[in-house]
Amino acid sequence: MHMPWQDYLDKEQSRFLDELIEFLSIPSISTIPAQKGEVRRAVEWVQNRLKRAGFRDVRILETGGHPVAYAQWLEAEGAPTILVYGHCDVQPVDPLSLWDSPPFQPTIRGGCIYARGASDMKTSVLTVMAACEAWLQGEGRLPINVKVLVEAEEEIGSPNLENFVLEHKDLLACDLVVSADSGQSDEGPTLPYGNRGLVGLQIDVTSAKTDLHSGTGGGIAPNANHELIRLLNSMRSEDGTIRVKGFYDSVAGLTSDEKARIAAGGDWVTEFAKYAGIKKIIGDPRFTPAERAVARPTLEVNGMWGGFQEDGIKTVIPSEAHAKVTCRLVPNQTPDEVYALLEAHIKSHASDAVSVNLTRLPGSALPYLLLLNHPGAKASIRALKRVYRGKEPIPTRSGGTVPFLGMMLQHLGVYTVSFGFSGDNENIHAPNEFFKLPNFPLGQRAFCALFEELARM
Amino acid sequence: MHMPWQDYLDKEQSRFLDELIEFLSIPSISTIPAQKGEVRRAVEWVQNRLKRAGFRDVRILETGGHPVAYAQWLEAEGAPTILVYGHCDVQPVDPLSLWDSPPFQPTIRGGCIYARGASDMKTSVLTVMAACEAWLQGEGRLPINVKVLVEAEEEIGSPNLENFVLEHKDLLACDLVVSADSGQSDEGPTLPYGNRGLVGLQIDVTSAKTDLHSGTGGGIAPNANHELIRLLNSMRSEDGTIRVKGFYDSVAGLTSDEKARIAAGGDWVTEFAKYAGIKKIIGDPRFTPAERAVARPTLEVNGMWGGFQEDGIKTVIPSEAHAKVTCRLVPNQTPDEVYALLEAHIKSHASDAVSVNLTRLPGSALPYLLLLNHPGAKASIRALKRVYRGKEPIPTRSGGTVPFLGMMLQHLGVYTVSFGFSGDNENIHAPNEFFKLPNFPLGQRAFCALFEELARM
Repeated sequence: MHMPWQDYLDKEQSRFLDELIEFLSIPSISTIPAQKGEVRRAVEWVQNRLKRAGFRDVRILETGGHPVAYAQWLEAEGAPTILVYGHCDVQPVDPLSLWDSPPFQPTIRGGCIYARGASDMKTSVLTVMAACEAWLQGEGRLPINVKVLVEAEEEIGSPNLENFVLEHKDLLACDLVVSADSGQSDEGPTLPYGNRGLVGLQIDVTSAKTDLHSGTGGGIAPNANHELIRLLNSMRSEDGTIRVKGFYDSVAGLTSDEKARIAAGGDWVTEFAKYAGIKKIIGDPRFTPAERAVARPTLEVNGMWGGFQEDGIKTVIPSEAHAKVTCRLVPNQTPDEVYALLEAHIKSHASDAVSVNLTRLPGSALPYLLLLNHPGAKASIRALKRVYRGKEPIPTRSGGTVPFLGMMLQHLGVYTVSFGFSGDNENIHAPNEFFKLPNFPLGQRAFCALFEELARM
Repeated sequence: MHMPWQDYLDKEQSRFLDELIEFLSIPSISTIPAQKGEVRRAVEWVQNRLKRAGFRDVRILETGGHPVAYAQWLEAEGAPTILVYGHCDVQPVDPLSLWDSPPFQPTIRGGCIYARGASDMKTSVLTVMAACEAWLQGEGRLPINVKVLVEAEEEIGSPNLENFVLEHKDLLACDLVVSADSGQSDEGPTLPYGNRGLVGLQIDVTSAKTDLHSGTGGGIAPNANHELIRLLNSMRSEDGTIRVKGFYDSVAGLTSDEKARIAAGGDWVTEFAKYAGIKKIIGDPRFTPAERAVARPTLEVNGMWGGFQEDGIKTVIPSEAHAKVTCRLVPNQTPDEVYALLEAHIKSHASDAVSVNLTRLPGSALPYLLLLNHPGAKASIRALKRVYRGKEPIPTRSGGTVPFLGMMLQHLGVYTVSFGFSGDNENIHAPNEFFKLPNFPLGQRAFCALFEELARM
């Protein structure tokens, strides 16, 4: 009954597509409490699909929130062990009126499958399971040891994932993590290798017991808004550079290799500015816009509020003002270190006429950089070249944050290779989400090839 | 049937109190559309009460909103003509649970009458009408010509009053306005002689077509919050002095007489700071706190908002940020001049990376100062001394704004004497509003005496 994985995949494509439609029909919206049963149904669907793939050790593991589907096959003695990560929960669908077909009735149009979760990331989860099946059922084995972890809380910020990892460190131990929550460019394969980290804090300024009348207090009473404005103004220059003492001290410089890699990404910033309706690109002139967007730290007031916000006029001296500030971090900054610097800056700049309270926001994340000569990165490049007809993957560095990457490095001591098959502009988190169907069998072949390449890691 | 006004008042006190209870029972809350009929009922109650007082020319005059009650008696040939101002609408009553007795069931406890509108200002309106009645029904005439105007939109900022005045300039023509919307101190009589003016604007900053993800835009995109912060920071120093070019150019200096008058008011600022829970009094050190609070201009950010305000974290670069800014003005500033200065400052300080839109807020008002040797002021002082057993009224200058005062000066060319009998701390605009009942007959006597003194103006 032995069959090469490529033949097995070819033979089963039509069933895999039926399964994809079934999987995408489950409304597993993790943020809506009423959908809790549907989220569990999606996790159980993954559980059953992992069994069908040939995993014998398949489990549902409980967390403080939605459960996790887990499977492992550890019979490749002496070979490396990888942990494949994915999630089976999806974003809400509103506004429903903007969908051309119902979000949980998957519909194929023009070579694409339309459904909530199609691109982010149920198709990629099934891609992994199909690839495992092709090895286990076709070849009778996997060339490496494989653990699969599919969570159901990614779209709500994975609030229980870090604790789950800490509680299951032995179970999850591996040589490399492969995150399938990733994508490829329409132009060709990519190798995401870097993300920025994150730390945030809320500033609450109190200037009096209650809002005051500016006819009485104007000229004598401090104004919480003005004190907050002064603090926030002290933290950032007009060009966006950060004026917090020590902020740049641990920021790693950019090597000429790294500058070249970033420059190779082209002038996407001009395009982005046009799309976003930005009059003028701002930033530290010592770096290119693209360098600033992915490899330099930031400080942004994401939100602020104080006093009267309704129509008309109210001559109040607000007693409270608030701001939420977050920083994107780059190697070798850490959230704890930067939080301490922000705290020290604010304490030294705050007026003694007001009380200033600081609260660290949830969602800290370490910056992440995968060295391109890491054996996992090299195996990933070889696998992608095999399925993309020799085309060299473009290393891409993102200005966004994936907490999972830093978390795995910190708690399991392993790097993560991002290896997924979502396409460009597939309306994720928006109406009419879709997935470009040619990437479904291509992704299966790529995963099968990756397993093979990782055996040589 | 001739009877001196003093005797007439003594004889009718019990009926006046019954009338007060009836008047206070009408829930004439001008801001609640459903109470529109009750507001008109209060205006009609005043109309009938003015007739009973002996006015033969009594009218209801319509405005764009709630109507006005108007009466005139113009038979004192050769004597001055005054216009007495009051309002019969009241503030909302919520939170109702904090009232010890229902707000529209007037209740007498400990020499005070508790009801919404008791202090602000139905009792003062009835006081005026009772005084007119004592003259007209007791003495058979008034010693001067008296016009009475009672509006019903004061608690919503008198949005139709200025147009009403402009449309009825001939009808309202007079030698002096007497505003009964005022009060006396528990320590003795006062003569309010000054108020600050007001001008306000809203600043709207737009930095992009839509909010952006700080993982993508952080380092290249302008942030509306930061641009607004920079603008607001440029307008005011840490000590509250205003950094807008030319802002102080037309501010009148303080004479040593004026400084002495303000100092005579005592150190109320320390008391106020304690009450308001202020850690430290701020302001321009070249002036005393009391001088700054009533005789120096201010600039306050009454409200500001931009971006994310919910719980938790959202790493957005907000595309819009907003602030409402108002200035209290002093002689000889004008709202138009100060608005132009603010506009010029903001335009010259705004970054070219964003769009900044300015909108003037409603509610502009000229600052107001009544010279203490004005004949109306002198008549008011003589009348108060008569009913307060010779006690000299203390001239008081307020940091608040009464648009009506500047409006009457501008459109009718006449000064206003504030002459009312609310007491200190009577919970106006708050639960358990009350009026100290001894001030009811005292106010009637004072108005009767004022009419007499004004005849000698």
